[in-house]
Amino acid sequence: MTEFELIARIGQLFAGVPRNDFEEPGDDCTVLGIGGSESLLFTADLLTEGIHFLRNTTPPYELGRKALAVNLSDVAAMGGRSVATLLSVALPPDVSDEWTEAFLRGYRDLSAEEGVMLAGGDTTSSRHDITVNVTVVGRAADHCIKRRSDARAGDAIVVAGPLGASGAGLCDLLAGNLDTPNARIHNAPAAQTAEGLWLGERTEVHAMTDLSDGLASDLRHIAEQSHVGATVDLERIPIAPGSDLVTALTGGEDYKLLFTAAPEALPALCRAFESRFGRPLYPIGTVTEAEDDTIVWLDRGRRVETDWRGYEHNA
Amino acid sequence: MTEFELIARIGQLFAGVPRNDFEEPGDDCTVLGIGGSESLLFTADLLTEGIHFLRNTTPPYELGRKALAVNLSDVAAMGGRSVATLLSVALPPDVSDEWTEAFLRGYRDLSAEEGVMLAGGDTTSSRHDITVNVTVVGRAADHCIKRRSDARAGDAIVVAGPLGASGAGLCDLLAGNLDTPNARIHNAPAAQTAEGLWLGERTEVHAMTDLSDGLASDLRHIAEQSHVGATVDLERIPIAPGSDLVTALTGGEDYKLLFTAAPEALPALCRAFESRFGRPLYPIGTVTEAEDDTIVWLDRGRRVETDWRGYEHNA
Repeated sequence: MTEFELIARIGQLFAGVPRNDFEEPGDDCTVLGIGGSESLLFTADLLTEGIHFLRNTTPPYELGRKALAVNLSDVAAMGGRSVATLLSVALPPDVSDEWTEAFLRGYRDLSAEEGVMLAGGDTTSSRHDITVNVTVVGRAADHCIKRRSDARAGDAIVVAGPLGASGAGLCDLLAGNLDTPNARIHNAPAAQTAEGLWLGERTEVHAMTDLSDGLASDLRHIAEQSHVGATVDLERIPIAPGSDLVTALTGGEDYKLLFTAAPEALPALCRAFESRFGRPLYPIGTVTEAEDDTIVWLDRGRRVETDWRGYEHNA
Repeated sequence: MTEFELIARIGQLFAGVPRNDFEEPGDDCTVLGIGGSESLLFTADLLTEGIHFLRNTTPPYELGRKALAVNLSDVAAMGGRSVATLLSVALPPDVSDEWTEAFLRGYRDLSAEEGVMLAGGDTTSSRHDITVNVTVVGRAADHCIKRRSDARAGDAIVVAGPLGASGAGLCDLLAGNLDTPNARIHNAPAAQTAEGLWLGERTEVHAMTDLSDGLASDLRHIAEQSHVGATVDLERIPIAPGSDLVTALTGGEDYKLLFTAAPEALPALCRAFESRFGRPLYPIGTVTEAEDDTIVWLDRGRRVETDWRGYEHNA
């Protein structure tokens, strides 16, 4: 069973179970309305050694930050604020106290920087591998919540930062270059939490997600769930220093926000974002009416045939 | 670092992080008030192969049920109702599709029986071991929430079912006897969810927890957090068929409820419980004023010296 088949099977099995006021899945987080025009957001990610990281290329402090950041990014992608986490760690006998201490400090430091409390979890031993599961609870005003399903034909497609640094950093790490700028970004990516909250408050922002699997894959999720297509101008994709176009499209783990916005409001949105954050937004394409979630990739106006898919391990 | 040292270290590191309306830890779940006299409850448990279960002694269907049940028990122990879970699974390459399907069916069947929906999670591959993390979200009326810290001197100490079946079942499994009644209880324990909700509504019930680590350990948690002592009459401890007193006290994983209750209300409480559930409650001792959480074990009135501790892997 592939991971996509597994997720589909889980969906089938749970189709008949009552939802207890929780919304349907299909977004970065699952939403629970709690009254007072407010909702809670829930998401979880599991990282395990040898699949998501290597002990000799990701230092423990950075891993502690990363395990949290990838979840904070999911809450930010819906316009919410992370308020609490549950942290489960399984540690094999060959992990030192120093490793554990550094991991916890990384997790704690990012928690403190983001104002996120620790609401529980589990600590156990394991036989072979380090495994970390983080569940994040977020909070959002109902009118700020952004979903993948709200893209409209004619919307501009926008990314909130340059892409491909994490993928290039992974190549650096695997080549033994552990201390390059991109390797550091891969090991401890920053979630766009302030940006997500700010974009959440803007009614001209329609659909939003974070780029965890790569633009080619994550944009497809928006297209599928909004029943639209998309056209992307490859020459407008912002490529991080030291990366390249294919890595920017397919590398995954960049954790930049991807959203669609009303085209008439785009210039003012871009100016306000740059004024607030000191960095630009990058419009890269247009949402189209195609109902079969077709994504057309244009290279200076010429259609490019491709089978680009995002990185799928973390779906 | 032992697991208790690790938990203490985590507590130190997070002491300064704002709590965002979540209560302090120290109970089976962490509580978040959401207004309207209601709260949400959060808990997580990680199970990993070779530590918490063996693939050749716990069938996948039972493991699916157990991974959920141990968390449902934590919510029940606070008087709450489980409403949603997040399920993360890491599966190594040698796990068959049949194994995965049976595991998911077990998890789904207990979810459906208990009316608990699936709010998210993660699915990934792993190198060596099966790892499962379950986070449960519960809901409770504020006035029904029971805590470990509410025991009062003079309270009766009560368990809601016979003890030691799971520990005896583990011995059966390790001896290769996979199909005994106690082995089945060990592999797929039942959480006392209806009993927890019912006890939560009773004001005469003061402190409550579930017996996950064994009576000797879990009663100590109540004593510590309530700043009281306890006297237990060993001959009143209900021992499950096929088990023995030491296993009943220290075996762990029984997932029966342990609570304290106002002594004057005890006879009526016991009658009402038996009338509702068709099974008795078992008063086993008394909460005392000792402020140093001393637990006195009496064998027909004679004090027994012991260093009994609960099973600590799952603290």
